[in-house]
Amino acid sequence: MKVPFDPESFRWQGIEPRPYKQGGGFEGITRYVIADQLPAAFALRYFELEPGGYSSLEKHRHVHLVIALRGAGKGIVGEEVVELEPFDAVYVPPLTPHRWINESAGAFGFLCPVDAERDRPQPLDADERRALRSNPVTAPYAF
Amino acid sequence: MKVPFDPESFRWQGIEPRPYKQGGGFEGITRYVIADQLPAAFALRYFELEPGGYSSLEKHRHVHLVIALRGAGKGIVGEEVVELEPFDAVYVPPLTPHRWINESAGAFGFLCPVDAERDRPQPLDADERRALRSNPVTAPYAF
Repeated sequence: MKVPFDPESFRWQGIEPRPYKQGGGFEGITRYVIADQLPAAFALRYFELEPGGYSSLEKHRHVHLVIALRGAGKGIVGEEVVELEPFDAVYVPPLTPHRWINESAGAFGFLCPVDAERDRPQPLDADERRALRSNPVTAPYAF
Repeated sequence: MKVPFDPESFRWQGIEPRPYKQGGGFEGITRYVIADQLPAAFALRYFELEPGGYSSLEKHRHVHLVIALRGAGKGIVGEEVVELEPFDAVYVPPLTPHRWINESAGAFGFLCPVDAERDRPQPLDADERRALRSNPVTAPYAF
């Protein structure tokens, strides 16, 4: 019932990396599912981005409440860009465009509890993309 | 949307401590609710035990998936006693008796995502108490 963590490798024993997702729009990101088959309404994942890695720019109805765990990274959340270090938390409201980015020289990792039953991520629509690309704060990350 | 963490105080900005619960059977434990009013099926709490602190010995149908974050502690989980250090995870199945204990000289803290809608904790029944008290592994923590 215990899932031991190994500080040297920054990994949980027996938790194998899984591909982040199919398709494109992301780079150097790995998913570790700590638990998603619980008799519970939530699942818990750990994501890690390599230096230069980033996740998909997407939105969905289910919310995120991310807790940074390793290294330093950034998130686009709506029109904001937030800097994340252990154990900063960030809330992503429903249908808010978001992307996680690692511009640092080391790994950037975060915990991401979510509803077990949740909608699939959607790409942004043309207006949302235009808004992020015309805002100087978010433009560098809205590729 | 960002909730900054302050490493010096080991606290999240704007997240005030709340009493753990009413009644007895616990000591030196504080609850920090990172988020429980999300439009989501989960809530996220951080609990911290002072040196010598412990939580109630209890059970409930909702599961726990605890992630240790600060210091070192122990958990009774059913008939096991597990040692917890950052970022060990431990799963508590439905209706499994459990208690968290801090026998260390520093604070022991852990994240605890749960179902937003969940049943109330129950005390153990007489048979469960007797089983934990007669097992030399769990007896020291089954007071």
